[in-house]
Amino acid sequence: MSRTDISRIAEKGRTERAELDTLLDATWLGHVALVREDGWPVVIPTAVVRDGDRLLLHGSTGSPWMRTVAGGAPVSVAVTAVDGVVVARSAFESSIHYRSAVLFGTCTRLEGADKERALDLLTDGLIPGRTGEVRPSTRRELAATMVLALPIAEWSLKVSDDFSEDPDSDVAGDAWAGVVPLAPQRHGAPLPHPDLRPGIEVPASVRALTGDAGRADGATSGA
Amino acid sequence: MSRTDISRIAEKGRTERAELDTLLDATWLGHVALVREDGWPVVIPTAVVRDGDRLLLHGSTGSPWMRTVAGGAPVSVAVTAVDGVVVARSAFESSIHYRSAVLFGTCTRLEGADKERALDLLTDGLIPGRTGEVRPSTRRELAATMVLALPIAEWSLKVSDDFSEDPDSDVAGDAWAGVVPLAPQRHGAPLPHPDLRPGIEVPASVRALTGDAGRADGATSGA
Repeated sequence: MSRTDISRIAEKGRTERAELDTLLDATWLGHVALVREDGWPVVIPTAVVRDGDRLLLHGSTGSPWMRTVAGGAPVSVAVTAVDGVVVARSAFESSIHYRSAVLFGTCTRLEGADKERALDLLTDGLIPGRTGEVRPSTRRELAATMVLALPIAEWSLKVSDDFSEDPDSDVAGDAWAGVVPLAPQRHGAPLPHPDLRPGIEVPASVRALTGDAGRADGATSGA
Repeated sequence: MSRTDISRIAEKGRTERAELDTLLDATWLGHVALVREDGWPVVIPTAVVRDGDRLLLHGSTGSPWMRTVAGGAPVSVAVTAVDGVVVARSAFESSIHYRSAVLFGTCTRLEGADKERALDLLTDGLIPGRTGEVRPSTRRELAATMVLALPIAEWSLKVSDDFSEDPDSDVAGDAWAGVVPLAPQRHGAPLPHPDLRPGIEVPASVRALTGDAGRADGATSGA
């Protein structure tokens, strides 16, 4: 069996690359698993961003796990979105609406202009447009940062988006069933840095993130 | 170096068990990493719940990864909450507010009354109070489900909750800095199952999850 076969609940497996990209592009939190030198698995949360056919990660050049992965250690990266709670007529059939991508491969370390562009993508993945508002990174900053690229080649995608499949005897009973949607995390009103100099306005990138929550009067969205 | 030393950014490491429990009790999504027979790492998202000094997981008895873990394979489990975006005066200092727990160990398989109680905790972790509203699991359902417990013994907790530490030259400049909070995911208005029989009201457990969004008139919260 290949690493990316969907071994369980085969009907949840998806093979459309566009569906994978939609998830990766909506989600910047990834969980990277690797095998340590002592043979133990370790999983680390980190920001990720898709760049075409590769997934970008970054970290300090002093980070042990980044160095291990840069050295060619195989990784598995999960990108997960939780979209709702499936309330069934029984505990057994209760479950979760989710989209789950798991990628496998080995990473290559980026350098030069490719690395600088990748770092911009990672920053703009968190705060779209921010790199256009701040100074470029210095040579020292670039030297302190490692950027890795994982090919989007070996992956699986599972999507759970159905109502519960309760047995007829439960459907005939008195228990409620349905789905409770879970909205994505929302950005709240921005908090200025305590040492922010007077007169510096909230920038366009932050206003775009927060929508109404970013208005100068501090009012939060009613939506 | 032990697996749970905080090797980087030591000031983010926390050692208070109460702080770990707060994160685990607020978050039911975990990412489990293990080493497959072929030596590759794999990471799998799954629901988790804390029960005292152990973390509970469950899945199908037919799930290959559950069987591997039940067989004593070492695991690493990450539980992660993202609380905000740190907007710095440079791309380099931009980062994330997060709470990140990583646990290590081997799991034991639960049976009998301990297993049934653990399954109730897992269901009520998703939908508090739900097990009091539905029938007990059947023997067949229990036999189809495996429950594993990981001791909360070897763990690390990292918390990032500060503003950016920009160099003086950047603080003196014109770039804005601050934090954009990210609210936890909110439950939306419940969607009834298409085959729900007429006259069955939204139960208390679901109303408690959704707050105002669960009102019978379908109005959503203005908060």
